Amino acid sequence: MTTDGPDRDEEAAAPLQRRPQLALLVEGDDRKGLLHDMTAAILDHGGDILSVEIVESGARSAIYWELDAVKDPESLERAFQAIDVVRSVRRLPSMFQVYGKRIIVVGAGAQVGQVALGAIGEADRHNIRGEKISVDTIPMVGEESLANAVRAVSRLPRAVALVLAGSLMGGEVTEAVEEVRARGILVVCLNMAGSVPEHADLVVTDPVQAGVMTVMAVASTARFDIERVRGRRV
Amino acid sequence: MTTDGPDRDEEAAAPLQRRPQLALLVEGDDRKGLLHDMTAAILDHGGDILSVEIVESGARSAIYWELDAVKDPESLERAFQAIDVVRSVRRLPSMFQVYGKRIIVVGAGAQVGQVALGAIGEADRHNIRGEKISVDTIPMVGEESLANAVRAVSRLPRAVALVLAGSLMGGEVTEAVEEVRARGILVVCLNMAGSVPEHADLVVTDPVQAGVMTVMAVASTARFDIERVRGRRV
Repeated sequence: MTTDGPDRDEEAAAPLQRRPQLALLVEGDDRKGLLHDMTAAILDHGGDILSVEIVESGARSAIYWELDAVKDPESLERAFQAIDVVRSVRRLPSMFQVYGKRIIVVGAGAQVGQVALGAIGEADRHNIRGEKISVDTIPMVGEESLANAVRAVSRLPRAVALVLAGSLMGGEVTEAVEEVRARGILVVCLNMAGSVPEHADLVVTDPVQAGVMTVMAVASTARFDIERVRGRRV
Repeated sequence: MTTDGPDRDEEAAAPLQRRPQLALLVEGDDRKGLLHDMTAAILDHGGDILSVEIVESGARSAIYWELDAVKDPESLERAFQAIDVVRSVRRLPSMFQVYGKRIIVVGAGAQVGQVALGAIGEADRHNIRGEKISVDTIPMVGEESLANAVRAVSRLPRAVALVLAGSLMGGEVTEAVEEVRARGILVVCLNMAGSVPEHADLVVTDPVQAGVMTVMAVASTARFDIERVRGRRV
């Protein structure tokens, strides 16, 4: 992952980090098969589904779609509107436009808050210049919970980096780190006991700095190239 | 929203905050219509779709499903496996099991980090006792950006509360606050200029305490009932 210019952003972005062509919120009543009917309409219009969010289900339905390659967006909106239970179809800003890239901070104790504080402060500085970076933190302990949280990062929309903020992590957590790195997630960790530091992209001793450097690494507005420090301990 | 015992949690939970019956990751190659074929299989098995995440698309595909009411889960797994491009179907822990409820912190400057710090520290204390609470922070400024971020909270899976951490918010942000409160999101804000404090569930002057109290309000492990302080300024 290189981030030394705004133009690198689109180029390096995985499908879910691209801006979708079309973001639609479709609301109405709910019934079995509603989503199936909507995927039929999308297929008819040649669309690629980037993301679906079931905002509401049961009595009422609200389904949020992010789509690409739709041949005639107005025609798709009419096709959605023609479904019996659909009441309204609205275009919205995409989740990437609203919340941007996500940095996931996982760990516990005094350190996890300090990593988040560093990342939030640095994200604030970049976001004020037009960047969009969120800092999502889950405080937790335990090898299995941590390994599950690390693995699930690759299933989180818009996640680009993970910071492991703890004092001792290894075993199954290390295996999970290798898995998410293979999915293109940048992994930063504190300088800690256990085998995780040997498998991270970057090891940072100070927790505030770990948060700051992770934001710098993923920001299009920063001139910091992770390739130049990969595998380092600072 | 009342949270004075673990049993209240399931009762008060919106559909997306419940544990799904089945969480599956389906991987293989990609092609147009793949999602449509999968929704057909789910419909055949009487399933309700709670969430879909397109983890990977393009050359390869990875689609993560959270489902309820599936009559014969093994049969559905076989039906997915029978789709031409599907290579593997795996059961996973659900996103609710891994990351739990989400508190969204929106704001900027010195305050946003302090709110997050308070929330993360308090979430750490609850999570160590078996709770799962994440604290997701987006530092940003500007009425339109803020209003978009507030409105989009209702489209974020597992989001239960929003904290507005700033010094001046009103206008379109206040309208957006009313909209997300109508969707069942708890809204806490700092004691600030602008009309937002008149429309929040709770106004807290100290940013660290604002984070702490929001976690207390949503934690099943806490004995704090937001109904007893709704509309207060502390």
